[in-house]
Amino acid sequence: MRGVIMDAPGEIRVAQRDDPTIQEPTDAIIKVVATCVCGSDLWPYRGIADVDHAPMGHEYVGTVTEVGDEVTTVKVGDFVVGSFFASDNTCEICRAGYQSRCVHSVGMGGIGTQAEYARIPLADGTLVATPSAPDADLIPSLLAASDVLGTGWFGAVAAEAGPGKTVAVVGDGAVGLLAVMAAKQLGAQRIIAMSRHSDRQALAREFGATDIVEERGDEGVAKIKELTDGLGAHSVIEAVGTHESMMQAIRSTRPGGHVGHVGVSHDVELPGLELFFAEVHLHGGPAPVRRFLPDLIDLIWKREINPGRVFDLTVPLDQAAEAYQAMDQRRAIKVMLTTDER
Amino acid sequence: MRGVIMDAPGEIRVAQRDDPTIQEPTDAIIKVVATCVCGSDLWPYRGIADVDHAPMGHEYVGTVTEVGDEVTTVKVGDFVVGSFFASDNTCEICRAGYQSRCVHSVGMGGIGTQAEYARIPLADGTLVATPSAPDADLIPSLLAASDVLGTGWFGAVAAEAGPGKTVAVVGDGAVGLLAVMAAKQLGAQRIIAMSRHSDRQALAREFGATDIVEERGDEGVAKIKELTDGLGAHSVIEAVGTHESMMQAIRSTRPGGHVGHVGVSHDVELPGLELFFAEVHLHGGPAPVRRFLPDLIDLIWKREINPGRVFDLTVPLDQAAEAYQAMDQRRAIKVMLTTDER
Repeated sequence: MRGVIMDAPGEIRVAQRDDPTIQEPTDAIIKVVATCVCGSDLWPYRGIADVDHAPMGHEYVGTVTEVGDEVTTVKVGDFVVGSFFASDNTCEICRAGYQSRCVHSVGMGGIGTQAEYARIPLADGTLVATPSAPDADLIPSLLAASDVLGTGWFGAVAAEAGPGKTVAVVGDGAVGLLAVMAAKQLGAQRIIAMSRHSDRQALAREFGATDIVEERGDEGVAKIKELTDGLGAHSVIEAVGTHESMMQAIRSTRPGGHVGHVGVSHDVELPGLELFFAEVHLHGGPAPVRRFLPDLIDLIWKREINPGRVFDLTVPLDQAAEAYQAMDQRRAIKVMLTTDER
Repeated sequence: MRGVIMDAPGEIRVAQRDDPTIQEPTDAIIKVVATCVCGSDLWPYRGIADVDHAPMGHEYVGTVTEVGDEVTTVKVGDFVVGSFFASDNTCEICRAGYQSRCVHSVGMGGIGTQAEYARIPLADGTLVATPSAPDADLIPSLLAASDVLGTGWFGAVAAEAGPGKTVAVVGDGAVGLLAVMAAKQLGAQRIIAMSRHSDRQALAREFGATDIVEERGDEGVAKIKELTDGLGAHSVIEAVGTHESMMQAIRSTRPGGHVGHVGVSHDVELPGLELFFAEVHLHGGPAPVRRFLPDLIDLIWKREINPGRVFDLTVPLDQAAEAYQAMDQRRAIKVMLTTDER
């Protein structure tokens, strides 16, 4: 099969890889219908994280082509959505809603779903089948549910976005924009998107943002305070992962408020004394997308949300190099890769 | 009046200070019946925090001797308990339960309650009167409610201690021990006290600890994991404030679990990537003791809890220097200072 390999920072190649096979009786094999490039894929692409001839990709929707002997909840032919961590969905941590930290979790990044086929470990716990084969226009949204929507949703839940709350979102990538959508769906009263790009501001407004703040850092914090009687937002979602954005999130939150952080942390060192006196709630990490998948698929299926709007560029798998370049240069918010054309 | 002054690290003196007077119509003056030395007073005593001829003390119970024109909820003669932050208890932050971050908060440490009298700002919001003059044996417990009990209680609430939960407590000072009591009252199933001192272990068991772990750091974490099927505790209360104890608390908590941190942070720098993948909830800060005071006073009044047990030494105010020394040398868990004898 064809699959994306990152040989070194900036070097993307679509190569022949071995077709995946069932290795455990709990595995399934899927024909990947659509996959995509994640903001986190840009860290190795930019040389900030190490990479050496690695298969890439951890987001996926597709059709089941084969199942192991112990798989019972999905069958050949099902259209399925899964997340970037395979999980058994039965252990105590999964049952508490933290499938991304399942005691048997397998990172899909190591498997590499930017490919024609993928092996999905722990298929019963990982995959959720759609009610039937989806209409083509739903595929981008279902793919978004696989990571960026589920991650933005977790950020909003971790920040306790809800009725009566003022929510601020730090970061205008796909996750930040979909955190706006999640906050809206969760009933937030006011949603402040922090963005300085007009196209992303427009999408944020479409998703439910009531206010836009263009300032960053201390100026951004001051602006949030100004909009909230000097108190700060009730809920702030951090969707970047840098020290600056994390501090911006904490400082924008009122005492007793909630920070939901879903940006993969890079250079963050939180000063204990400031955190102590900030008196915020802090929660986040790799999103347990599986917790939310059934509900998200349902909302998409009923066409109540359209998270697929974050894909502003779609290219065939063979043009993966262009997909990475477009994301790296911020020409695209998020790029979908399709496998059904050569 | 007499009052404690710390002239420099290690130098405690009981000096003549001006009698406090009503400065704002919302003030009250109390005759301090009992006050005490806080673990946080040891930071300047040990030269870790700056100090220069400062009045000391922020914990107090006493009898109201004078009230400003606008004070309506307490009257002359009432026996009252207050906390280390005066708060209006009416602003939006107070109403959300974060009185320690009241928009008008006044730190009582600057006023110095290790004295015969004290001015209490925002008396209506700050003070809670007991149903009548308390029996003498209740005074230590009411004084404990002023800070260490309220702080331990907040730690347990922030850590979401409750039925079915395994709770671990890092720190065996008065706050840590009373966090054990709080976890017990909140219905926790299993309470692990981390302590290597037999007298404190005994008090932890009296307060409700079901297990004792003597190990610290990585060994302590391993022991907590061993006691919790390898997962970590649901709820961990951090009651020390050092980097080591904070990391011990985070690493002892299962994914999705809750860390309640109430130790005043000193050398803490939280590594963002580890915090991200730990996927815990983190909440804490200066305890909003006022939120809990009515309930705590009620429990003490009914003699359902006896938090005054943490005072294992009582001396007259004039012997404050001995009180500081006993705490510094860990000869006493917590020292009460009384003002009614010379």
